[in-house]
Amino acid sequence: MDMLIEKIKCEGIVLSPSVLKVDSFLNHQIDPQLIHEVGREFADRFSSSGITKILTIESSGIAPAVMAGLHLNVPVVFARKRKSLTLINDLITASVYSFTKEETSEISVSKKYLSEEDNLLIIDDFLANGQAALGLAEIAQKAGSAVAGIGIVIEKGFQKGGQQLRDKGFRVESLAIIDSLENGMISFEETTENMGELIR
Amino acid sequence: MDMLIEKIKCEGIVLSPSVLKVDSFLNHQIDPQLIHEVGREFADRFSSSGITKILTIESSGIAPAVMAGLHLNVPVVFARKRKSLTLINDLITASVYSFTKEETSEISVSKKYLSEEDNLLIIDDFLANGQAALGLAEIAQKAGSAVAGIGIVIEKGFQKGGQQLRDKGFRVESLAIIDSLENGMISFEETTENMGELIR
Repeated sequence: MDMLIEKIKCEGIVLSPSVLKVDSFLNHQIDPQLIHEVGREFADRFSSSGITKILTIESSGIAPAVMAGLHLNVPVVFARKRKSLTLINDLITASVYSFTKEETSEISVSKKYLSEEDNLLIIDDFLANGQAALGLAEIAQKAGSAVAGIGIVIEKGFQKGGQQLRDKGFRVESLAIIDSLENGMISFEETTENMGELIR
Repeated sequence: MDMLIEKIKCEGIVLSPSVLKVDSFLNHQIDPQLIHEVGREFADRFSSSGITKILTIESSGIAPAVMAGLHLNVPVVFARKRKSLTLINDLITASVYSFTKEETSEISVSKKYLSEEDNLLIIDDFLANGQAALGLAEIAQKAGSAVAGIGIVIEKGFQKGGQQLRDKGFRVESLAIIDSLENGMISFEETTENMGELIR
């Protein structure tokens, strides 16, 4: 996705060979116009998948998920990382290990909002080791919901999550796939970059 | 705002005389079409205020803030409740006490994204005791940013936050103001309800 790749090139900051900071438009400050287009792109890619609901995780998944939900005209459910006091009963939970934070947290969704009739699109801002997406897929499975696919804004292709999810049979659509952050440079996977070039 | 009030009447669940659960469309499951209209309404009300940026707080503030940002064509910044590992330097912080969770948490925004040139619209999903909005206003003040107003999706008019913010001189625009949750009934403030009736 051209607009997104340009934005990453202009504003992404390489903090280390594994950490890319995109907090100027995606996960601290948000560019609503860009994320609106990100949502449209997810909706286009999954337009014929019969999606009934989007499942994401707080906090940075919410903006792209809600924009995709706007275009697909389906509700969005976000998993919580902490239990809320007004949301205590009938939770479906999964454990998610964060390599960045080096801690395991429990994520949860109310049973009320996922059912056997649902065909879910899982959306998240980043895909690195795939733990969050796997946790969301586990919640979907426990609810008896189908997972039509996983939409990711930025995939770190050099980490193992994407391959792992595809090996498990999930359709993963990442709008930008980063090949390497070595030497402070952001390199994109050729297909993503070429798709960008073609659109431009 | 008619559409919102109808939704609260249909789907809001009164858990106690002070707690209204609206997790079917606002803060767990999200109705993107409704929140798109909520964003449009905020944008309309603050269209002549010269807003340069929206400031909100994770997680439930993000969806309405991003939709308002889409309509006002300005960036959105969300304050974090926990420090991120990739976001450690140059933070502006404020302490926020949650009456629901009975705990104080520190909220933070990167200095990079707020400046003396900014004229902010603060957005949140709920206004009860006003602690989150006050914390966001404190962050704005520490950044030297002006606050043009505060946009709230649902105000609990029987709690003290709204009055406190208005007494401090803030322009507070709440799209639905709830007068009472006594006896399991949701009563709206007359002006909000009437505005709903007029639009209908």
